[in-house]
Amino acid sequence: MAAESVLISEVGPRDGLQNCKGIMPTAAKQAWIAALAAAGLKEIEVGSFVSPKLLPQMADTGEVTRAALDLEGLTVAVLVPNLKGAQLAVDAGVHKITLPLSVSETHSLRNLRRTHDQVIDEAKAITAMLAELPAEKRPHFEGSLSTAFGCTLEGAVPEATILRCAERLVEAGCHEVGISDTTGYGDPKSVKALIRSVRGAVGDDMVTGVHLHNTRGLGLANALAAYEEGIDTFDSSLGGLGGCPTAPGASGNIVTEDLVFMFEAMGVSTGVDIDALMKTREQVAAVLPDEELYGFTPRAGLPLGFAAANVAA
Amino acid sequence: MAAESVLISEVGPRDGLQNCKGIMPTAAKQAWIAALAAAGLKEIEVGSFVSPKLLPQMADTGEVTRAALDLEGLTVAVLVPNLKGAQLAVDAGVHKITLPLSVSETHSLRNLRRTHDQVIDEAKAITAMLAELPAEKRPHFEGSLSTAFGCTLEGAVPEATILRCAERLVEAGCHEVGISDTTGYGDPKSVKALIRSVRGAVGDDMVTGVHLHNTRGLGLANALAAYEEGIDTFDSSLGGLGGCPTAPGASGNIVTEDLVFMFEAMGVSTGVDIDALMKTREQVAAVLPDEELYGFTPRAGLPLGFAAANVAA
Repeated sequence: MAAESVLISEVGPRDGLQNCKGIMPTAAKQAWIAALAAAGLKEIEVGSFVSPKLLPQMADTGEVTRAALDLEGLTVAVLVPNLKGAQLAVDAGVHKITLPLSVSETHSLRNLRRTHDQVIDEAKAITAMLAELPAEKRPHFEGSLSTAFGCTLEGAVPEATILRCAERLVEAGCHEVGISDTTGYGDPKSVKALIRSVRGAVGDDMVTGVHLHNTRGLGLANALAAYEEGIDTFDSSLGGLGGCPTAPGASGNIVTEDLVFMFEAMGVSTGVDIDALMKTREQVAAVLPDEELYGFTPRAGLPLGFAAANVAA
Repeated sequence: MAAESVLISEVGPRDGLQNCKGIMPTAAKQAWIAALAAAGLKEIEVGSFVSPKLLPQMADTGEVTRAALDLEGLTVAVLVPNLKGAQLAVDAGVHKITLPLSVSETHSLRNLRRTHDQVIDEAKAITAMLAELPAEKRPHFEGSLSTAFGCTLEGAVPEATILRCAERLVEAGCHEVGISDTTGYGDPKSVKALIRSVRGAVGDDMVTGVHLHNTRGLGLANALAAYEEGIDTFDSSLGGLGGCPTAPGASGNIVTEDLVFMFEAMGVSTGVDIDALMKTREQVAAVLPDEELYGFTPRAGLPLGFAAANVAA
């Protein structure tokens, strides 16, 4: 059931950078994304088409996207909060868009200033807009269940609410439903259980990816649990960049370097050259010297005689 | 197959403190161990009966042991490198002794200055010494397979060598065989595979505990893998204290706080009051201010509405 290879979807340029105090200059973003792709990452979330007033770190997403589209074989993904963002993403020519739907309605109102009904309406409007495009210009459309393992404002969200959100995203035309542990509340047992429930509601093929955080240190254990449950796409961020917006001092996304090491050590191919990947930390540190870069494998180095799965393959 | 409750064996006062540059004063050790036991930890490795010239941090193990034995319900464990250490441990009245056997003979020679044959001879001598004791004074005797997932000097160690070491420990009279990822080389797949192999060689009942490190960030994922394989005893260290002796800047033992959080979140009882546990970090920081304390749960705090398994039970 578990996959022989996995897709690591690097979200550092989006989820990482949007939570940094400093702003990475456009040229540095483009060079970093190019280096990440050269290290073997096949999907990168390069930015977010949101209001530059809300997230000035993402103001250059258009330029960053256009440069990323020149990188051969790379799936260029962006986050969009609404139809307007999706339209900008389509204009830029992205391959994939992700619309977050926070299953905690309190969080949805606070973060996107929209109720569940309003987010679903945006999803429907995006689907209608995409339907007008020729097939080759139509990006993959993911709806993502944010705060799926609990919310810092509401606590646990009832499973029935989560499953209804998943069903409504599919009914609204999403091609895929992601599960996001925005708050780092998940644990291996709840990760497995929720994957099974959401798949039960919308079908196994509709749920292939998870977005996990490492807020309480369980990120890789949760990724392992998801992998054992048949998930084959994992969001992560180089250096766990960006920290956790709701918990100062705590880490944010799971660390790409450690995630890649875990899978390669298990003999599960990621296609990533881990040495080249780790080297890109220098690019981040050079322009964002005050940001903490997480990750244990870069500090400890690889085991003596370590052979990556994709080298052996 | 997986257990409903697990035993967390706190090794901070031994494996943590022996890798610290500073020396924790005896009274501070005793107070910290008392606080750890009060937080619900039922087994603590309080020190090591080794030469104080080699490890001055452990010179007061006798005094620390005697104070720990006054703590009701606590299993007091120590590490011993040889018969002489085991005799001192018995004289002090400990409940459990652990003799490490490094499956990498290079590491064994470097660390304990003994070949495999010589360590096995010590094990036999310890067994003979224990046999002379009345049953109620006889400590539990664990033989531990160090560097079981690879060695920083030798790299991977052949499985046949590891299994032969396990068999010889049992033949020499050990009551239990532990599996130790001294170097942080293990991954979830190799952890599961080795537990299965060692159990195949010496019997399921002889292998119930693992000692994992978090050197490359995989500590909790490896603990989860071991748990899924039926292991119910986990060594860990408060704050991941002590770092990694072979990799400066990298972390060492898995962090007790995060491990307890993982299990409790999964509904697996540890018996530990996680708030009381986290509070003991202050005692360590007060006397060892230069030591880095690891752990994400203490930084992020518990999830909103979090109910521990042992509170619910």
